[in-house]
Order: sequence, then C-alpha cells, then structure tokens
Amino acid sequence: MKCSYVLQVIPISAVTWSPDRRALRYLDQRQLPLREVVTDVRALDDVIAAIQCLAIRGAPAIGVAAAIGLVVALDEATGGESAGIRTLLPGFAKQLAAARPTAVNLAWAVDRIVTRAAGESDDGLWNALQNEADRILREDIAMCQAIGQRGEVLVSNGARVLTHCNAGALATAGIGTALAPIYTAHDMGRAVHVFACETRPLRQGARLTAWELQRAGIAVTVLPDSAVASLLRAGDIDLVIVGADRIAANGDVANKIGTYSIALAAMTHDVPFYVAAPWSTMDLNTATGTDILIELRHRDELGDVPPNAEVWNPAFDVTPRALITAYLTDRGLVQPPFSMND
Amino acid sequence: MKCSYVLQVIPISAVTWSPDRRALRYLDQRQLPLREVVTDVRALDDVIAAIQCLAIRGAPAIGVAAAIGLVVALDEATGGESAGIRTLLPGFAKQLAAARPTAVNLAWAVDRIVTRAAGESDDGLWNALQNEADRILREDIAMCQAIGQRGEVLVSNGARVLTHCNAGALATAGIGTALAPIYTAHDMGRAVHVFACETRPLRQGARLTAWELQRAGIAVTVLPDSAVASLLRAGDIDLVIVGADRIAANGDVANKIGTYSIALAAMTHDVPFYVAAPWSTMDLNTATGTDILIELRHRDELGDVPPNAEVWNPAFDVTPRALITAYLTDRGLVQPPFSMND
Repeated sequence: MKCSYVLQVIPISAVTWSPDRRALRYLDQRQLPLREVVTDVRALDDVIAAIQCLAIRGAPAIGVAAAIGLVVALDEATGGESAGIRTLLPGFAKQLAAARPTAVNLAWAVDRIVTRAAGESDDGLWNALQNEADRILREDIAMCQAIGQRGEVLVSNGARVLTHCNAGALATAGIGTALAPIYTAHDMGRAVHVFACETRPLRQGARLTAWELQRAGIAVTVLPDSAVASLLRAGDIDLVIVGADRIAANGDVANKIGTYSIALAAMTHDVPFYVAAPWSTMDLNTATGTDILIELRHRDELGDVPPNAEVWNPAFDVTPRALITAYLTDRGLVQPPFSMND
Repeated sequence: MKCSYVLQVIPISAVTWSPDRRALRYLDQRQLPLREVVTDVRALDDVIAAIQCLAIRGAPAIGVAAAIGLVVALDEATGGESAGIRTLLPGFAKQLAAARPTAVNLAWAVDRIVTRAAGESDDGLWNALQNEADRILREDIAMCQAIGQRGEVLVSNGARVLTHCNAGALATAGIGTALAPIYTAHDMGRAVHVFACETRPLRQGARLTAWELQRAGIAVTVLPDSAVASLLRAGDIDLVIVGADRIAANGDVANKIGTYSIALAAMTHDVPFYVAAPWSTMDLNTATGTDILIELRHRDELGDVPPNAEVWNPAFDVTPRALITAYLTDRGLVQPPFSMND
C-alpha cells in the first residue's frame, strides 16, 4: 500500500501514523520546498527506502519512523498474527537497523520494539508493539517540547537567531530540537527572526528550515554558508543554536559540516553558541570528538565538478567544547563533562 | 554582432581580441565545466551584459574586457570616426563603469581609455584607443607572470594549497593571480595539490578553478565552503592563497564571500594566508575595509528557497589585515600600510 497526496493540515508532522494506524505517514523531504507530498507506507521495503533516500531524515525522526515502520510492516506481512510476528521480527529488525548504519536512533528504536516483543505473551502481541511505537512517538514529541520550554528563555523578543542545517520539526516527530526554543518563543508572542544557513551540499537549511519556519509565520532569511562570518561580524545575530548528531563526554559536538566554522566566527565576534539536542544524543562511550568517525558522502552531491578533479565531501564536522556556550537538552541547560549521573 | 562556437585552442584565454581585433572575445564562464563556448561581442549592451551576467568575471579580466569592449563598442557605433567617438565616449564609459560596483579594475580600465582619448588628436584616434586597450591586455598578462615569478617560492615541491573562488587564468587575461604561483611552480616541475573551495552560490571553485587546474595537469580536490575549517584543522593544508577584488590602504581585503571565514580558520590553525593581486588592486583612496561597498546579488543565485523566506546573498566579504600573512603582488611580497610611493 502506498499513496501520495498534498498535505492540507497544520502543524507539520514529519513522521506519524496514518489515521487508521495501519501505515507510517511521512512528509517527503526530498520534494520540499517545491511540493508538499505526504506518503503512507506499510511494506518493509518501502519503509527502508524512505529512510535510505532521505525522504525521512533527522536522527529523532528516523527513530520514530523505524518504530512505526517496523510495527506496520509486521502487520502488513502477517495480518497481526502473533506466531508470524515472532517469526519475522528478527529479520525485519535486522534489515531496518541496517538502513542507515550511522544513525544511532534507528538501532535504538528497533531495539525497543524487539525488547517489548520479548516481554509480551502472544495474546495481544501486535497491540503491544503498536503501543510501544506510539510511546516512542509521544516521547519524541515530549522531548521537543521540553527543549523548547527549557530553552525559550534564550530567545527574547526581537531575537535574531542563526541556525545551520535542519534541526526542526522536519527532523523530529515534534517541534524540533534547535528550532524548539524558537517555536516556543514565537508561541509566547515574541518576535523572532531566524537566519538559516543554506547548508551545502543538500541545502537542508534553504529547503527545509526556511520552509517550516515561514509556514509557521516566523521571519527567516537564508544565506550561503560562506556568508556566516560576515553576518556575525555585522552584529546582526544575537545567538546561534544548532543541533547535534553526537555529543562526546567532554562536550565536543559532531554536527552537520560547517558547524565548526560557524562556532569559530561566533567566538571571534562574541556571539553565544548553543547546541540543542535530546539527552540521548550524549554518547558517554565517546571520550572526545577525535573519536567520532566522520561519514564521507558521494561526490555527486556537490553537483557538477570536472571528472578529473577529486571531491572531499564530509557529512559532519566536530566543534570543540571550548567554542560552545552551553548545551540545551530536554533536561535543561547543561555543561560538560557529562556523566550517567547527570 | 554575436557568435558562439566551441573553443579548440590551448592555452585558455578568458578575454582577448577576436582575430580581426574588431570584437571582444571571451570564454563564457557560465557554461563551464560542461561546455567550452567562446563568444565575440561588439555592441556596448552585449559587453555590459557579459560582465553583469558573469560570463566574464574576475577583477583583472573585467578590466581587460572593459578596455577592449569599450573600444570595439565605439567602433561598432561610429565606424571608428573620431567626432562620433568623442561624442559617445563619456556616456559609454559611464554605462560600462557602472556594470559592477565592487571591482576597482573596471573603472580603472575605462578611465585609461578616456584619458588616452583626451590626450590624442582626432587623427588616428580609434587606433590610439585600440593600442591603449591592447596595452592593458598585455600588461595584465605580464602582471600575472610577475606574480607567478615573485610567488613561486611559496609553493614548494609537494605543497598543498587551499584557494577560494577563481583567481586563475579564467579571472585574468594571463595565468591568474592566486593561481599564478601554482602554475609557475608546476612549470618548474614541482608537485602541487590544490584544494578548491566550491564557492557558493555560483560555484566558481568547483566549476572554474577545478576545470582550469585539471586541464593544466595539476591535482585538484573540490570541497564545500563549509568544510574548509575541518580541512585546515586536519593539517592537510600548507598555505592558503586567495585573490582580491579591492585592497584598502590599511591592508583590509575585499574578496569573494567566504574568504573571511577561511582566514579565521587559517589563523586558528596556524596556516599562512596570502592574498595575491596586481598592485592595481590597491585602492589607496579607501582607508579601511569598512569603507568598501559590498555588492548584494539576486536571491535566484542561491537556488530554490521558499518564496516567503528572504535571502541575503553578498558577493564579497572583508578580511581584516590582521589575518593576512602577506600580500603577493607583481611587485613582490609587500606589507601594509600601502602608499603611492611603494
């Protein structure tokens, strides 16, 4: 089952259930900002394809999509019959977890469904799994709201906020991470102007962050990544808020390529630089940023380059803790070193 | 008169005369690296359009194009008749000088033609102007060679050089400014590896610098502008050489947007940062970088952005002198403050 139509409703749901809870419903992010296409999928291959082709992206959104996608795919393959679910679950979970091996949330969400299945009797198994996926969805929405409520104090009336890539509603099931304090301040009636870096090569800032903010009625200006330092020097930015893909125990942050450059310029021009992420992004098994493996992506993403020229296209960079003012999590503003007891 | 055909010859001439010296001939840089299209123009509007649409770009190339273009446009409009030239020259010069605001070479080259006309009798006026434009062309070629000869010492065997935008053969009538030391070192048998920033939004690094270097057999790697700071931190770059569109008397440099960001990262990681430019780029009437007007370009250059979002697309930024190791000119390596007596 797969159908596409134009989205009518507000607010945005990047990933959620279909109304009958038999399908994963997602907003196809490859087509933004030109077209708003919502797609429902039930088959495992369709769920995996949506994650691999970046129709669904952003670590929290991928986790939610994996949980819902796994449950609906089991329903599609077995009709919800418990013995069938137990037979298929290990293989389905393995395939889904491998869709994007670098995204921590993907494996984590799949594990939660597998663990729940192991703890349930056959009676009502599929309903239990559906409840677990729903809990993951609701936790993600609540995590975003908590970051917004803890962080709105940073975004005063008239604030001009710079962000990079997309750590917004499109990257989560809720109101985002880096954008959560902005949405919350906007809901409280404060004027906010967001400056969104284009974010080469895939332009998530120009295509996604600008789209979701203007749709919410928040003023947004897009600029090339290379213009950030000039903007910061001009005194036109009050604070920077970016997301994070992984935070090491010492506070070094892996995030979209270009984040380090923004942090250097922010430090030079005395502009506060915040990293917003769910507490689950803290990777206490990683001591420092030098231990984080940086994914290199394909040359074609960069567009036309002469065939005899090489391309270096890293997906992420590491921003050292010394450049970061504070870390905004669903537990509040925190400082490294981080530990399990925090 | 306007005709286009595919270039067959090596080396590259970004701007020159047509063989009969009645037209400005240029390599259309909008079409690189996919197609090599050479175009001849004679009418003033076509000359201005070629400069405004960035078919011709790079401050020295714009200066040469303006000189040749002004002379052929006067010929096209008057048939070379002296009274007609004197009538049309002030208006033509004013229109041409206004084609782009930031590059000092454009107004400078136009002034040279105007001054030459003022000092000539009517007898043979057009030939005199043609000779003046030809002198500007030859001076530009010699200027590039001088920068290469003065600067090759910076590029040792095995050097890894980062550059931004295109300050190469395509930006001049000769072998470029920032790339001149690289071409010269390469000609002397040294191995050089160039890292070319993509240079958003028009991708002059990915399209133009990579194209002309690989065509000359020099190893080149293209990277997104946002990845520069990571590359410099990794210790993979020995020196940075960029061009300049205008240099203030105190040494502040206006150059392609992103240059300032690279300079900040180079300073952070102790990588020497050189600015290469003809001495004529020194604008001693401009005290500091804050006096330099920065051209804002159209939002469409940035690609798809939601219509309700604004776009900030500055063409240039200003790098303060404190971040610049030295200035490589056709007179050698120099340091500010600059004066007429240098």
